Amino acid sequence: MNNFEFRNPTKIIFGKGSIEKLKNEIPQDAKVLLLYGGGSIKKNGIYEQVTSALADVDIIEFGGIPANPEYAVLLKALKVIKEEKITYLLAVGGGSVIDGTKFLSAAALYEGDTPWDILSKSIRTEKAMPFGTVLTLPATGSEMNSGSVITRSETKEKLAMGGPGLFPIFSILDPQVITSIPTRQLANGLADSFTHVLEQYLTYSVGALLQDRFAESILQTLVEVAPKVMKDPTDYDAASNFMWSCTMALNGLIQQGVPSDWAVHAMGHELTALFGIDHARTLAVIAPSHYKYNFEAKKEKLAQYGERVWNITEGSIDDKAYAAIEKTVDFFHQLGIDTKLSDYTKDYEGTAEKIAQRFTDRGWLGLGEYKTLSPDKVEKIVKMAY
Amino acid sequence: MNNFEFRNPTKIIFGKGSIEKLKNEIPQDAKVLLLYGGGSIKKNGIYEQVTSALADVDIIEFGGIPANPEYAVLLKALKVIKEEKITYLLAVGGGSVIDGTKFLSAAALYEGDTPWDILSKSIRTEKAMPFGTVLTLPATGSEMNSGSVITRSETKEKLAMGGPGLFPIFSILDPQVITSIPTRQLANGLADSFTHVLEQYLTYSVGALLQDRFAESILQTLVEVAPKVMKDPTDYDAASNFMWSCTMALNGLIQQGVPSDWAVHAMGHELTALFGIDHARTLAVIAPSHYKYNFEAKKEKLAQYGERVWNITEGSIDDKAYAAIEKTVDFFHQLGIDTKLSDYTKDYEGTAEKIAQRFTDRGWLGLGEYKTLSPDKVEKIVKMAY
Repeated sequence: MNNFEFRNPTKIIFGKGSIEKLKNEIPQDAKVLLLYGGGSIKKNGIYEQVTSALADVDIIEFGGIPANPEYAVLLKALKVIKEEKITYLLAVGGGSVIDGTKFLSAAALYEGDTPWDILSKSIRTEKAMPFGTVLTLPATGSEMNSGSVITRSETKEKLAMGGPGLFPIFSILDPQVITSIPTRQLANGLADSFTHVLEQYLTYSVGALLQDRFAESILQTLVEVAPKVMKDPTDYDAASNFMWSCTMALNGLIQQGVPSDWAVHAMGHELTALFGIDHARTLAVIAPSHYKYNFEAKKEKLAQYGERVWNITEGSIDDKAYAAIEKTVDFFHQLGIDTKLSDYTKDYEGTAEKIAQRFTDRGWLGLGEYKTLSPDKVEKIVKMAY
Repeated sequence: MNNFEFRNPTKIIFGKGSIEKLKNEIPQDAKVLLLYGGGSIKKNGIYEQVTSALADVDIIEFGGIPANPEYAVLLKALKVIKEEKITYLLAVGGGSVIDGTKFLSAAALYEGDTPWDILSKSIRTEKAMPFGTVLTLPATGSEMNSGSVITRSETKEKLAMGGPGLFPIFSILDPQVITSIPTRQLANGLADSFTHVLEQYLTYSVGALLQDRFAESILQTLVEVAPKVMKDPTDYDAASNFMWSCTMALNGLIQQGVPSDWAVHAMGHELTALFGIDHARTLAVIAPSHYKYNFEAKKEKLAQYGERVWNITEGSIDDKAYAAIEKTVDFFHQLGIDTKLSDYTKDYEGTAEKIAQRFTDRGWLGLGEYKTLSPDKVEKIVKMAY
């Protein structure tokens, strides 16, 4: 097991009817900016629950944060924060709204020239404006971690930021919110959280037995509940396991003491930036090719994954490892998610070269758990995913 | 899954050589009381590592905190804290030293008549003197939770306390410390952490699939590493999994959203208070009888435990459940831990009645996950454990 440092101070308030507990979490004297996305919260009753819980608090609203939170939109929210002397942020939404709120939390206290620096210069955020979240879409885990990914469409860039100042003070997780989520987004959430675990697990063994088993526990649970969630989002047992699994998949716990990969995300982000493909679907496009291309380096762990998560008991290590990749592809397909880039765009020629060039330009010369995945290898993997 | 609220802000610093990182965690201007136990840290090099890491900090020492931290001893430490105007506590030890330090952390800021109130009146500690820990004995999980158990020998009482103010600010976990732990205490640590998980898992199902799997992951890992730890404490892989499993067994995570039992601990504490039997061994004495006595209520979960942790595949639910209890007893025996009260004392007659009477006197009329385990049932369980 590798050495690690771990701290996650976010308070989780989980369960049926938990949105009303908002009133206990935000200081009465706060001036709150309530951030949300396309406005679905005004149709599904969540907005009503939030504002009635905060009836005694001074709130201003900022809606319209898009999927893949857009820098230009966030700059408008930042202006509101400064003009209105906001002291507390409340994200009501999924990963995009929460990630956008994290950027604002950092940018509100940032003293440099332009807040884009936080992303382009990888500035770690130690101190930020306090914020809480009401999660409306289980998927990214952003509700219990300190990371954020922001998109800037004018430059087709999608960059990450983070730091210990960016943990939500609290996050409210009411699994009942999934009853109003479109099937497409439920599938995305399942695929996204599943791939989050794979990125931290499908590397090589360092003898971290407990972390491996925790990762497998999340994967097993997602496999078990996925068909139930897709069929009947009012199944509270399935919904609550889905929601908690998404949070645990990326709250830092399972990555302690083990190598992690994240190359699937690095490549996937480019497909979103270039084609606007849903984040989760880009992962489903890249992951199978990535695991096939890096088969020799990952096959021990792939075989363990096959045995423990997919109950593959027959064959050699190679057989089990290969079967595990096939099972993963089947899982995405069962969610209704296509796994080839050509399923999403006719305009895929040249994509691999373009992504390899971007990685070269950014100095990303060695991705993955061994830091050896160079741009020429990235090019091959993306081509395999056409 | 039941509703829950969860927050655990303790920073974990885990791994080889991590004690030297102490210097980054304690404020330079702190006046520190370093608390420890019988003095083994002065023989095994840990004291040297701690004091050299804190060479620039003002430190006073207080040694001699006994196993089952004794109220009378702690009152002496409390006097030092007040006289010396201590601002920060550092526990270097196992669960007893850490639990004692938690009591002191609360008592140092307590404004009532006598600090015993905190225990006898179950006063929840919201604010306490900051403290960190250097763990020298994996077992209790106290390094990453906010609970503590204190013994008062003059009244033969052993009572619990807790509250959000009692999380360590940081805990340093260097698995190499186990190389100097006597086999007997390694066995205790394994049995203690194993039983902690059972208390939060062997109840009834509420459909919390992920929590169940996390609990089983810890149990599986402890079963896997136990013989290695006992045979060769220098096996770092085994030591690190053992240490991290003990922490995860009782840091609050696996008990979120599920019922928990804790009747084994309630009864076990009395055996320590009455006979001075090691805490972990009292659990091994009580647990088998408890699970047999409550067989009907617990058999579904016992069978699941048998299947997933002990690979028991044959037979009915009843068969599997019963075999799982036998496997548990075997596990304790393999650790060299006896599982009958008569193995520890010849003076056991009347113990069951005495414990039942104490529970009655304290108003503990319904223990366990259903809160239906009345003193007369406690009496029967303890008798079964003779």
